[in-house]
Amino acid sequence: MRELLFNNVTIIGVGLLGASCALALKGRGLCGTVCGYGRKEANLRQAKDRGIIDEYSLEIRKACEHADLVILSTPVGSFKKIVREIRDVLKKNTLITDVGSVKGHLVKELEELMPEGVRYVGSHPIAGSDRSGIGNARADLFDGVSCIVTPSACSEKNAVQQITTLWESCGANVEIMDPMRHDEIYAAVSHLPHLIAYALVNTVDDSNAEYLKYAGPGFKDTTRIALSSPEMWRDISLLNRNNLIALIERFGNNLDIIASMIRNADAEGLEHEFSKARTLREKC
Amino acid sequence: MRELLFNNVTIIGVGLLGASCALALKGRGLCGTVCGYGRKEANLRQAKDRGIIDEYSLEIRKACEHADLVILSTPVGSFKKIVREIRDVLKKNTLITDVGSVKGHLVKELEELMPEGVRYVGSHPIAGSDRSGIGNARADLFDGVSCIVTPSACSEKNAVQQITTLWESCGANVEIMDPMRHDEIYAAVSHLPHLIAYALVNTVDDSNAEYLKYAGPGFKDTTRIALSSPEMWRDISLLNRNNLIALIERFGNNLDIIASMIRNADAEGLEHEFSKARTLREKC
Repeated sequence: MRELLFNNVTIIGVGLLGASCALALKGRGLCGTVCGYGRKEANLRQAKDRGIIDEYSLEIRKACEHADLVILSTPVGSFKKIVREIRDVLKKNTLITDVGSVKGHLVKELEELMPEGVRYVGSHPIAGSDRSGIGNARADLFDGVSCIVTPSACSEKNAVQQITTLWESCGANVEIMDPMRHDEIYAAVSHLPHLIAYALVNTVDDSNAEYLKYAGPGFKDTTRIALSSPEMWRDISLLNRNNLIALIERFGNNLDIIASMIRNADAEGLEHEFSKARTLREKC
Repeated sequence: MRELLFNNVTIIGVGLLGASCALALKGRGLCGTVCGYGRKEANLRQAKDRGIIDEYSLEIRKACEHADLVILSTPVGSFKKIVREIRDVLKKNTLITDVGSVKGHLVKELEELMPEGVRYVGSHPIAGSDRSGIGNARADLFDGVSCIVTPSACSEKNAVQQITTLWESCGANVEIMDPMRHDEIYAAVSHLPHLIAYALVNTVDDSNAEYLKYAGPGFKDTTRIALSSPEMWRDISLLNRNNLIALIERFGNNLDIIASMIRNADAEGLEHEFSKARTLREKC
């Protein structure tokens, strides 16, 4: 049998990522007991019945009091409130991580909320999707995916190592990254695309929602991420605000360049803009 | 054996769509001889060697002189020039169609170029893709896809019927649509998304092209269509200019709404915008 990484693991928010963490840890024999916390008892009961979690509580403090590892997998906007609620019931040496898509300033703010002896190290496994809920959870969700771990200057080396081992044991490839750099990168390659997908669908609606029935695979792929959780993306948008506002402006400039070229019938200019994008996209 | 729909078919531009038309027609025994025309002899020779076409010519007039059906499958911006080049070698009763993504005013302009006895009816099989070239051509490319046929008020009923039969025989589901309405719809569900995908990739480049290595499935799906042919999309953008300029503005407004909400920390507003888009997208 493999050595346990953690005895008691508590998952706050048993959705796609939380439930997949539970399955990955339990399936590999990496933890003792997994306790789930969430707002909807029906969901927690289902998770327990399906063997995703061993037990659950509808009281967050109770769910956390024995935890050696707490994984925050609710929308990022709830993390600070949750930590404030649980901080005084946590055992010494409890480790906290999360699976949120925003790090940046939030890492420092969460660190400042940690009680003596409790360590927080942020994680972002790149395994989110427009699908959500335990119905889509899988033990192998993290197999071969990237997981960004974002320690701060204050993080204990040992805690960072434990979180790295956690994700590597679940099959992910860990990359250590500065929290601010994380937010700058993911604003560009993930957060902005989500805002664009939502805005694009709403634009078709402004014309005529009936037009959607003519949408082909191009439109469907481009807007697939508009199926993502509005609550989750609301929080991400607000917490990565500065990067996103700058990027929306930069994107607007690029679209304006194309609009001017169309207006001025600048065929050569358009072909150049499109070719530049295609060459870059081929590198993905 | 099935009745021949056309004896001599000429494909102008032997790429993904042109070659797939040839394969679909020949594979079903719907035509006699298929002649290809294109600018690159190597491509035409390959098409002939692989049995996609029966013969080819590097002289467009020669390629068309015996044609009963001419299918234009080059970038839409070349159609008028091509028709001007071939018009006086065409036989009486030749039928011309195309597989272009723009109709609108172009339909009338092409109709006006037709010599006595030659009829043009536009088609738009929704089977284009970011992939191009004969390497991706397939006899079943049109199976089950929509094909919009766009007659004008001047179109002969019989010609419209022949073009409808052509596509239905190739497996497509034909919908008859006004050319102007076609362009309004496809500006929204296809042309604008392409411009957005190109602009989005260029925006990441403005930040740092290295960030692309962190792109996950969300970014890749959203920008897949930025792999499409710059030449083809240059032409489409210019020919559907008015619809696109109006839509870029409308899209900009939707993105500005989101940017303001982020700036004003309007959590409720953001969730509402995102939920509205998600609900619509679920209908696709």
